[in-house]
Amino acid sequence: MIADRLKKVRKKMSEAGVDVLLVRSTDRYLNEYVPQEESARVWISNFTGSMGEVLITKDRAFLAVDGRYWTQAEKETDPAHYEVLKAPLSTAIDDAIVEKLHALLPKDGKKKLKVGFEPDRVTPSGLEHFRSKLGARAELIPLSPSPVDAARGAIKSAPGTIRVVDEERVGRTARDKLEELSKKLAELELDGLLIQRLDEIAYLTNLRGDELPYQATFKSIALATRDKLFVGIDPARISGAIRKVRDGLMFVPEAELWASMGKKAKRLRIGYDPGSNTEYGLLQIQKTGATPVPLASPLGPMKARKNSAELASMTAAFARADLVVDRAVRFLSTEVVAGKKVTEADFADKVTELFSDSGAVGLSFRVISAAGKNGAIIHYSDPSPRRVVKRGELMLLDTGAYYDEGYATDLTRTFLVDAPNARGSDEQRRYYTLVLRAAIAGMTAVLPDSARGGALDAIVRAPLWAEGLNYNHGTGHGVGINVHEFPPRIGPNSPSVLEEGFVFSIEPGVYPPAFGGIRIENLCTLERIPRMPGFLRVVPLTYSPLDKRLIEPKLLTPFEKAYLTQYAKVHASSDRKKLRLES
Amino acid sequence: MIADRLKKVRKKMSEAGVDVLLVRSTDRYLNEYVPQEESARVWISNFTGSMGEVLITKDRAFLAVDGRYWTQAEKETDPAHYEVLKAPLSTAIDDAIVEKLHALLPKDGKKKLKVGFEPDRVTPSGLEHFRSKLGARAELIPLSPSPVDAARGAIKSAPGTIRVVDEERVGRTARDKLEELSKKLAELELDGLLIQRLDEIAYLTNLRGDELPYQATFKSIALATRDKLFVGIDPARISGAIRKVRDGLMFVPEAELWASMGKKAKRLRIGYDPGSNTEYGLLQIQKTGATPVPLASPLGPMKARKNSAELASMTAAFARADLVVDRAVRFLSTEVVAGKKVTEADFADKVTELFSDSGAVGLSFRVISAAGKNGAIIHYSDPSPRRVVKRGELMLLDTGAYYDEGYATDLTRTFLVDAPNARGSDEQRRYYTLVLRAAIAGMTAVLPDSARGGALDAIVRAPLWAEGLNYNHGTGHGVGINVHEFPPRIGPNSPSVLEEGFVFSIEPGVYPPAFGGIRIENLCTLERIPRMPGFLRVVPLTYSPLDKRLIEPKLLTPFEKAYLTQYAKVHASSDRKKLRLES
Repeated sequence: MIADRLKKVRKKMSEAGVDVLLVRSTDRYLNEYVPQEESARVWISNFTGSMGEVLITKDRAFLAVDGRYWTQAEKETDPAHYEVLKAPLSTAIDDAIVEKLHALLPKDGKKKLKVGFEPDRVTPSGLEHFRSKLGARAELIPLSPSPVDAARGAIKSAPGTIRVVDEERVGRTARDKLEELSKKLAELELDGLLIQRLDEIAYLTNLRGDELPYQATFKSIALATRDKLFVGIDPARISGAIRKVRDGLMFVPEAELWASMGKKAKRLRIGYDPGSNTEYGLLQIQKTGATPVPLASPLGPMKARKNSAELASMTAAFARADLVVDRAVRFLSTEVVAGKKVTEADFADKVTELFSDSGAVGLSFRVISAAGKNGAIIHYSDPSPRRVVKRGELMLLDTGAYYDEGYATDLTRTFLVDAPNARGSDEQRRYYTLVLRAAIAGMTAVLPDSARGGALDAIVRAPLWAEGLNYNHGTGHGVGINVHEFPPRIGPNSPSVLEEGFVFSIEPGVYPPAFGGIRIENLCTLERIPRMPGFLRVVPLTYSPLDKRLIEPKLLTPFEKAYLTQYAKVHASSDRKKLRLES
Repeated sequence: MIADRLKKVRKKMSEAGVDVLLVRSTDRYLNEYVPQEESARVWISNFTGSMGEVLITKDRAFLAVDGRYWTQAEKETDPAHYEVLKAPLSTAIDDAIVEKLHALLPKDGKKKLKVGFEPDRVTPSGLEHFRSKLGARAELIPLSPSPVDAARGAIKSAPGTIRVVDEERVGRTARDKLEELSKKLAELELDGLLIQRLDEIAYLTNLRGDELPYQATFKSIALATRDKLFVGIDPARISGAIRKVRDGLMFVPEAELWASMGKKAKRLRIGYDPGSNTEYGLLQIQKTGATPVPLASPLGPMKARKNSAELASMTAAFARADLVVDRAVRFLSTEVVAGKKVTEADFADKVTELFSDSGAVGLSFRVISAAGKNGAIIHYSDPSPRRVVKRGELMLLDTGAYYDEGYATDLTRTFLVDAPNARGSDEQRRYYTLVLRAAIAGMTAVLPDSARGGALDAIVRAPLWAEGLNYNHGTGHGVGINVHEFPPRIGPNSPSVLEEGFVFSIEPGVYPPAFGGIRIENLCTLERIPRMPGFLRVVPLTYSPLDKRLIEPKLLTPFEKAYLTQYAKVHASSDRKKLRLES
């Protein structure tokens, strides 16, 4: 079957005159979670992991994956057709692709390698990255439609329903947001802005969908003008009730979106964000004759700054999710201590069930349920139905869900699978306590206005660095309608400016392969400090319990001990606000 | 006199067809310290401060300065000719210039403002910054020679002598360095590299000069090829003895430097660093027909990584400077307690005298001697001959010198002017101890390989941020042949990669205007940690005493207290190496 599909794709490639074709994991909505049945990459390779990029040449095909998928990639692909490119830890998958493309450059220095790519699945900055890495000896050729899509034919996916959120709970009307955006467009001397991030469209319209896994967005594309937001979507999907109250929103079939710019298009300046739009989007703007203006979308910080209604909604959702995790943690130890057989997959199912019981409408990502050494695999998103959880080992649970409010939750706890009065080993306690120190450093950090993500990242890592430990992932990401939203990005050297009201994770960890993994993740926000003008402090929005059996008090400073006492008090209190932690 | 000079300059401007002329503080060697008598900006404005940029229009002139020079600029310039542009704290002087240029844009939107600039005193990246800030409505026109130079006529400056450093003490021969550079050029597929930073030329050639204030470099320009280094300098200044042993070095008059590329120039690729070369240098490369290739000069990290001989030379110089500061500190308190009248200027003179007694060949920058509230003026480089130092107040001393080895020293101590058994006020102790905590955070920091300056910056500032305090300058700069060398840069969000063997300052401070200023500065390096592969730790290269009378133990953690005990032990020890602080 794969042989047949590859043959068809190669025919299309040959028609288009390209030597190589790059097939991306994402879809034309730049979705992080693409439904399996819609994924072009799954269709052409059979590989079902969440991340993996494909390169197809005239006679071979390559699948590049990172450490978490080395085994699965080899299992799922046919070696007769596919060679797996194993990106080493801490190198990007794209680097493996670039390396392979370099190897494919023609021996003849004057000939160029013609690389086809799917412009609707790559951002202009992503493309620029490829271009700069490949240099002048490769030519990047946009293929629209993608040869994979052309070979595959149309696929049908059931469109879900579109609903309006309770505007009281998000604190602002769509009209209000559009007016703010309109002002920003005026300031930027723009006539319009192309919007393709689905969470930005959901945010602006106050609409939500249910057609995509692990998110409450809906497939669409939008073009904001100074007085309207044109949403490219089948208008039949928008109920009359919705349309009635949304006076600034125009729902038009996607094909008509560009036509809506009319004949005056040539005189217009349309903004696009090279990191949030697709190359296809940019090409479409150019096609109308308008001038595309690259910029950092003003929607990023707008969406990231949560108002008090949003903070209240999110905090309420986080509290429900905390309870789910708390119950799951206790359930697992009780079962295992009682001698029951529970696998990683069983535990993930239990977590899902508890979320459902708590009123969640869906998970915000696949449950990470990793026992013992599996905890060292950073995105361990396929809990094993065979791996039985053992007493005395550590369990890493990273999970989240959506409630009515439509905001994602995200929480990680690592805990000892044992009786309540047990005590972790010296090694378990040392690692856990060091990660906890890093988490406390983040949760108590005070930063000046306009500090960057890189500064908070260093403050969180410092206690681990001091012990020669580190973690090979970011310290935090924004959370909102999507569980991963940007800004902010909190990572090494990140230039992302941190602002009041941003909601983000702080999630340090350690992953010694022979030991396993420990990660502690809390969602936090940034608040003004009345007695310290010009500064913001980090405040946790969740007080989910920490595992006392894994804390080694000798490794804590007096400040950290006092903080943990206060943290436990806030957790136990029914009025969290009053007891808010002073950092 | 100034009127007459401005008139002459305006005549040249009119001949060149420009509306405005930008006159820079620096010279064609991009010197940080330009001799007063050579400075074009001093000549045209009468303003003698170290930093200040001039704008001349057809009928007015402007001098932009930052906070430290607001008063001096108004005193030294004639209001009939000059308007002082006061750049507010924390904004760059160039921003004030850009603002004024915006105000000068012609009302008629179609007309452009013609801005003349001196291409030999601005870097291509500096120029790019102006260009991007000014947009399409200003045209930047290079004027060579500068209208100010043309109006002024030739100036004579006495050329100093050029000497060879003791190569044992710098650990490498010039030939050895040239071979390393040659390999790097080959890797970069370059035929040559234009070198204009005087400290890079001094570093590569192992030659030093004495013609410039506060540095051991000499005026020259250099072009490295794969097998030679052409140094543009009057060859008569190079003694036969030097020329004999320097087989890779070719000394040619500057005018002949470009001719040395010969007829094959058109086929050559010459590297230049947009941040370390001048626009003039770039224009010269273009004139030869060669292809200029922008890059981050490989000389930056080469020069910054000190070998063990350099570290030994530097440590020895720092120890001598420490002793000078120690003596100066004790001198001042003794005199003031004994009722003697000592002014800031007297104290600066005393420091200079002590440096001279200690064998220093020159200062590495003007002594900062700031009493009480004057400490809040960050670069207070004009100690007052009227301001008498009072008992019980704080004195901020920031100073450094050169010894035979040719490396700059740099040390800041803030101390209580009082008897040895006195005690600072609550406020003095609080601020001092908090700054000390920041300094300790820096001196004990452990960082992973390839960490950035921004990470160390955040770690140093965190203890101050936690109290709502901050400082409006960088945390540290590289130190070598020049007292300010780059890389590294340790500042907010700095992408400068930190490497083993770099030598740099860590100098946190607080400057509440109503209180004064406290800064503590130690020079440090980065070392490998045998038991922690992949990590580097900061190690101080100086153990100059701290003022116990200003330390409030209640504000210190147990770790910090233990560190200070150990620090004092190392200071007291004759064998510092053995007692090196474990972080």
